[in-house]
Parts: sequence; structure tokens; C-alpha cells
Amino acid sequence: MAHAAPATDRVLHNYFRSSSAYRVRIALNLKGLPYDYVPVHLTRNGGEQFAPAFRARNPHALVPVLNDQGHEIHQSMAMLEYLEEAYPEHPLLPSDLGDRAYVRQLAMLIACEMHPINNLRVLKYLTGTLGLDEAAKTAWIHHWLGLGLAGLEAELSASPRRGQFCFGDTPTLADCCLVPQVFNAKRFALDLTPYPTVTAIVDACEAVPAFQAAHPSRQPDAE
Amino acid sequence: MAHAAPATDRVLHNYFRSSSAYRVRIALNLKGLPYDYVPVHLTRNGGEQFAPAFRARNPHALVPVLNDQGHEIHQSMAMLEYLEEAYPEHPLLPSDLGDRAYVRQLAMLIACEMHPINNLRVLKYLTGTLGLDEAAKTAWIHHWLGLGLAGLEAELSASPRRGQFCFGDTPTLADCCLVPQVFNAKRFALDLTPYPTVTAIVDACEAVPAFQAAHPSRQPDAE
Repeated sequence: MAHAAPATDRVLHNYFRSSSAYRVRIALNLKGLPYDYVPVHLTRNGGEQFAPAFRARNPHALVPVLNDQGHEIHQSMAMLEYLEEAYPEHPLLPSDLGDRAYVRQLAMLIACEMHPINNLRVLKYLTGTLGLDEAAKTAWIHHWLGLGLAGLEAELSASPRRGQFCFGDTPTLADCCLVPQVFNAKRFALDLTPYPTVTAIVDACEAVPAFQAAHPSRQPDAE
Repeated sequence: MAHAAPATDRVLHNYFRSSSAYRVRIALNLKGLPYDYVPVHLTRNGGEQFAPAFRARNPHALVPVLNDQGHEIHQSMAMLEYLEEAYPEHPLLPSDLGDRAYVRQLAMLIACEMHPINNLRVLKYLTGTLGLDEAAKTAWIHHWLGLGLAGLEAELSASPRRGQFCFGDTPTLADCCLVPQVFNAKRFALDLTPYPTVTAIVDACEAVPAFQAAHPSRQPDAE
């Protein structure tokens, strides 16, 4: 791993269950880049992401934050693109222009159109400010997950670009985003039966050690 | 414009007020790339994005969709990255690795953490399924806009990379995303006084013809 710096030059401020942190852990592992894990607990102590020291790193008070050899980045999709540019070995984007757009389209669909609507702070607003009960909260989560997964299933099942993974037989940025999103769906007990193409891809990913090592249950702050 | 194909080789399926379509219009204009405008009305006829012909293009039933010389892409951030790779003239990303991460971080923050939570379909769920009244809907919109803009203001006002625009004195992907988001905030009558750095950047952008021509009020389907 010619590109890998000593672990102390790369820090990921992290929360084991954060879907966006999970994406970045997968990408780091796929590229063989070691990193130091600094836990930021999102619900303990009123949310450690709101502490002044963390806000100084990220005024948006969200995990993850990556510091790679002095480059500090606090948005997960920007991190993935940065890692791809800084460490081109083990590419997570194909080389062809159209293929790259296809992979990014899947990744961004998850990152923009699915994940944020079910993020912790949104759920807190629903149950706190709007006073929704657990059933209404779960209905919200399932609605947006189901809508996104139905779109992904239609898209992936019809795509000639799909292989064992979202694109061909090597994991890409799309798989880095898909696996955490489906982990989330399982956590919220969504029925995944209508999405066989999606679940087959996730199963293929979960057989890869880089994905396994990034799983929330394997992180130092896992509960 | 050596790169620009005839207008008939480039189509943007569009809605004048869509924030994500507005982003792509700005980028196309900044790169001097002409395109055909195909309107997709998001509220008329029960939402033209749900029509089978449009769903065949984008199973997620969202605008915009770009077809550039046969490359069809249906996620706006993937389009912006594609345009940057396909038409490197008039770059919308800086050349330095850390600077690129900074610009993407701002762009993705808006695209992932701000825009989706206030998107039309989410607002419809709030007033429809959850039965929220207009005041509660506006409070929701203002909450998420305010949170995102406060983070952007803190970040931009402190950044040595900021110039007349988000990064230096040439518009980037960050400005392509910021201007439509602030247009949205104005539309929902959010008080922008607490965000002077953000509004100064938007004012600078709005003096640029490429931004002016992309404005919702200037589109063929504007109401």
C-alpha cells in the first residue's frame, strides 16, 4: 500500500451507527487506508456533536469528519470523492465517463434523496417538535426507505451495468452508500422482500472483508 | 466553445422552480453548453414526473434528467460531476486536492443536508399524511433552512478560501448549489439577515449572466 500514510496521519471522527460514517469506513477499507477512530456519541451527553470542540471542526454538527494528512473534510460524499482523487489505487469509480455518472447517480441518490430524510435530527424533530408517536415515526421511515429502495430496485434490476455489485464485479462508491442504507432499513425492520436485486448486491458486499470490517457492530464504540 | 454539441444533442428535463434543476442550468450556462429545455410540471396533472414516460427515464420520479449526447443521468450532483469531467473548459472545481474537497463539501452539504428535507414530496407528506397546517409547514422549512444556512455562514465567513464567490473569484459547484438554495429561502420568506456572507456571495453570483439566465423566472415554464 504505497499510498497509505501512518495511521496517525488519518483520523475519522465517527459514530458506529452513522450511515454516512459507515460509507467512509467502507471506502477507507476498500482502499487499504488505515485510520484512527475517534468516537463522537450522537445521543450521549446531549449529543457530543454539539460540543464546541466538535463544532469547531464542523459547524454543521454532523459526523463524520475526516482528517487526512491535514486535509479536513466534514461531508461524507466530499470525503469519498477526495479519497478517490488522493488515492487512485483500488478505484471506487469506473474509468468510462458514462459509467462514472451511473455509479455517482446511484451513490448520490442514496446520499441526497434517501439518507437525509431519515437522519437522526429529522426523526428527533418529528417526535419532539411535532409530537409524533413511534408508529407515525416508523411509518415515516418506512415510507422514504420504501420509495428510495423501489427506485433503486427498478434501476438496478434493469441496468446492463450491474454485476455482482451495483456496477460490475468490483465494489464502487455506489456500494459504499447502498450497504449502510440497507443496514438502516434492516434496523428499522423494513420488509426487504420487494427488493431482491438490492439485497443480492448487499449480500455480495457483505462477503467482502472491507465491508465486514466497516460494519457498525465491529466498531470500538458499538453498543 | 469547442466542446458544445448542437443543442439537439443535449436535453434537460426540467421544472423552473426545482432547486436541483436550477443547479444544473447554472452549470450548463457557466460552461457555455446550450441545451433543449423540456418542461416537466411537478404539480399539474397530478405531477408529470409520475407519468410512465418520465418514470421510464427516472424510476425515482424526480427532476431534473439530463441527456447529453446519449448519456442519460437523473441525479443533479452526478450531472454536475459528469459535466465537469466531460467539459473541462470553464472548470467548476479548483485543481488543488484540498480546494476541490472544500468546494464539494459546500456543494454536497446543500445537496444532501439541506435541500432534500424541504423538497416538495416531503412537504406534501407533512401537510397530507401528517396533516400539518401551513404554519407548522413553514416552521419546518425555516428550521432546516436556518440550520443549514447558519452552518454555511460559520464555514464561509471563517474560510480563507472564500473570495467574491464560495471559493475565490470564479464560480464553482458550491455556488451552483448555493444560489438555488437561497432562492428557495427567499421564496419561503426566511429572514436572511443572520447570513451576510452567504447573501454577499449570492449577490455576486446574481450579477453573472450565467446565473441570471438560469433563474426560475427566466425559464419557459415559469409561472
